[in-house]
Amino acid sequence: MSIENDVLGAARRAREAAAVLAPMSRLGKDTALHAMADALEAAAAPVLAANAADVAAGRADGLAEAMLDRLALSGQRVAAMAAGLRDLAGLPDPVGEVVRGYTLPNGLEVRQLRVPLGVVGIVYEARPNVTVDAAGIALKSGNAVLLRGSASAYRSNAALVEVLAEAGTKAGLPEHAVQLLPADRESVTHLIRARGLVDVIIPRGGAGLIEHVVRGSTVPVIETGVGNCHVYVDAAADLDMAVAITINAKVSRPSVCNAAETLLVHRDIAPAFLPVVLPALAEAGVTVHGDPTVRQYGGERVLAATDEDWAAEYLSLDLAARVVDSVDDAVAHIRRWSSGHTEAIVTGSQPAARHFVSHVDSAAVMVNASTRFTDGGELGFGAEIGISTQKLHARGPMGLPELTSTKYVVTGEGQVR
Amino acid sequence: MSIENDVLGAARRAREAAAVLAPMSRLGKDTALHAMADALEAAAAPVLAANAADVAAGRADGLAEAMLDRLALSGQRVAAMAAGLRDLAGLPDPVGEVVRGYTLPNGLEVRQLRVPLGVVGIVYEARPNVTVDAAGIALKSGNAVLLRGSASAYRSNAALVEVLAEAGTKAGLPEHAVQLLPADRESVTHLIRARGLVDVIIPRGGAGLIEHVVRGSTVPVIETGVGNCHVYVDAAADLDMAVAITINAKVSRPSVCNAAETLLVHRDIAPAFLPVVLPALAEAGVTVHGDPTVRQYGGERVLAATDEDWAAEYLSLDLAARVVDSVDDAVAHIRRWSSGHTEAIVTGSQPAARHFVSHVDSAAVMVNASTRFTDGGELGFGAEIGISTQKLHARGPMGLPELTSTKYVVTGEGQVR
Repeated sequence: MSIENDVLGAARRAREAAAVLAPMSRLGKDTALHAMADALEAAAAPVLAANAADVAAGRADGLAEAMLDRLALSGQRVAAMAAGLRDLAGLPDPVGEVVRGYTLPNGLEVRQLRVPLGVVGIVYEARPNVTVDAAGIALKSGNAVLLRGSASAYRSNAALVEVLAEAGTKAGLPEHAVQLLPADRESVTHLIRARGLVDVIIPRGGAGLIEHVVRGSTVPVIETGVGNCHVYVDAAADLDMAVAITINAKVSRPSVCNAAETLLVHRDIAPAFLPVVLPALAEAGVTVHGDPTVRQYGGERVLAATDEDWAAEYLSLDLAARVVDSVDDAVAHIRRWSSGHTEAIVTGSQPAARHFVSHVDSAAVMVNASTRFTDGGELGFGAEIGISTQKLHARGPMGLPELTSTKYVVTGEGQVR
Repeated sequence: MSIENDVLGAARRAREAAAVLAPMSRLGKDTALHAMADALEAAAAPVLAANAADVAAGRADGLAEAMLDRLALSGQRVAAMAAGLRDLAGLPDPVGEVVRGYTLPNGLEVRQLRVPLGVVGIVYEARPNVTVDAAGIALKSGNAVLLRGSASAYRSNAALVEVLAEAGTKAGLPEHAVQLLPADRESVTHLIRARGLVDVIIPRGGAGLIEHVVRGSTVPVIETGVGNCHVYVDAAADLDMAVAITINAKVSRPSVCNAAETLLVHRDIAPAFLPVVLPALAEAGVTVHGDPTVRQYGGERVLAATDEDWAAEYLSLDLAARVVDSVDDAVAHIRRWSSGHTEAIVTGSQPAARHFVSHVDSAAVMVNASTRFTDGGELGFGAEIGISTQKLHARGPMGLPELTSTKYVVTGEGQVR
């Protein structure tokens, strides 16, 4: 009961804060973001002390080294968070943007304007920088935010939110614009059922977390992140480009959702391409899981692929590989196995590119470019709250406009029907 | 088990149809819509016979006269459905529209294109014309559609879908682009849990139906329709305009969601306005449920309002009425009681209008115009699938673009990160 009261109480306070935030001017919000950045830098010492306690507790609990690394803050990381808030202040305000506007024959002026969503709930795992990023993006777009981070980062998150909330309120934000929820497992359950109080939930983390939120939520959810991405090397591909894109998509950062997980190769180019790409992959430390044809070219080093490989989001230096008979065959494989994040085609053929683009049903389709470009920063959004793999509301990288809804404002001089 | 198999089987077939529909040209879709319209007119006799059987069964089951009227088709109503399909064919294709497009410093060309959602499930009550409207709008926007109408209209819906499906397939649509689900209660349960097969559910009907779908669904839902709409008459209102808008908003069609349910009156204008509007409402047959101040002006004819009246979507010739102290007071009442559909302000004051517009959090805000204009037809959309009262994906009247998602297409010449 007490966790439920905590969560619902916070959601009610957030709702009140949201009503004050929605009509705030850009100047008011940007002033608060700068104040929060300054306060973060000034309070680096207590934030780092809280973080050190999280890291020590994590080490004592046997947290893996990679997790400890993601959890650990430094003076440099705190400065980067502050810089992120200042960058947000420099971006245009999505609120008030006129998405459509026209005048009806009867003289009514119709405007569809961007407005904040209201109260945004974010459920995320270890990294404490998400706390600051998510709070900043939510506030810039005029939303109140409920943050539910992991237990292992609780002290860090609490220290960060205390600084942000205090500085924000002093600079003119409503109280409770940014709140941290208890890290108990139960608090997620109450948050995702706070229908009517919370307008959207964005889960950021592994597939298990996302599935739990999606299945249990009565609040609308924006799914993020799972990326089983494909690179398809067409018959008409430039060989050097195909090798460069394959290696970049797999190797440049294997742990992220826009990294490639499966390579599809047209049968006609396989004899020229596979003998070049397989050694290059091996040299980069990649283990290939191939179908029988790929194994003919790769020999012992290529493991036998099963359906589990086609389905896998490895997030490691592993790559599934298959030879296909046509663009259509590649599209069919992708439709069957992809998570709908990003697929790339490498081809010099305009008809092949056109066919691939119109038949692949994913958030992003790359033509002669690496899958790694599906990223708010790379696409020039200035800020990113996650990458949506669902079709409703937002699809692909989500920036500030994706944290807004719209409102129709219709102005007349007494018109009736 | 059998209903579950029926529903999931239909959803799987719809998914296959959706893959064929998505890349279809506008010409292909419009040709099919015209063929469906022609076929409907040609098959009016069997459709009307099936409908007569539904009406007879409804009458035997004691269905109310108003419900029977909504259920009954005529030659004229069938012709109107066919005309609706031809109108859809004349509208621009939302699919392929470039929502954003720009070139990055590294030469990558970024395009955000509209694409179909995929498989759309529509759950609706009595009116058989929704069957044809919804199928047409879904197909025009490139989606496969699963229709789940009510048991009382099952024969009519089955006859209509048979005609549409046959004509559509002959004209080049994939099989199973339009399917009717069994009318059993259970079929809704399976439809709203067909996550991964169905992309969105749109419930159209009463509050009970919508709540059932929202609570039980693991598929994303777009909520439609509940409208507890307000007219606020400001201190600076033109009296004649305020009376005309109040009467129009309440009386012109009381049974629809954009009809006004509560009248809020600024204290300063109450002595001039209430003595004029209350007799006008009485003459139009409206029963007013007022607060004590309103009752001072209206006497016996005004019933005492309770919280139930502020919350009510009467959908009848009833109107709640309250005197408020300020624009802020009106906004607070609306924030507390509104369903977020449409609110109107009548005022000659620019600051009051601006404050009302920025502080009211509803899908549509009218300034000096009737609430009745929140309607796809009135706003010039050409087609409407419902009015969303939620904030995610679509808010307000939903036309063809609201049945689409987007896809990023990024084109390069070998770019890597």
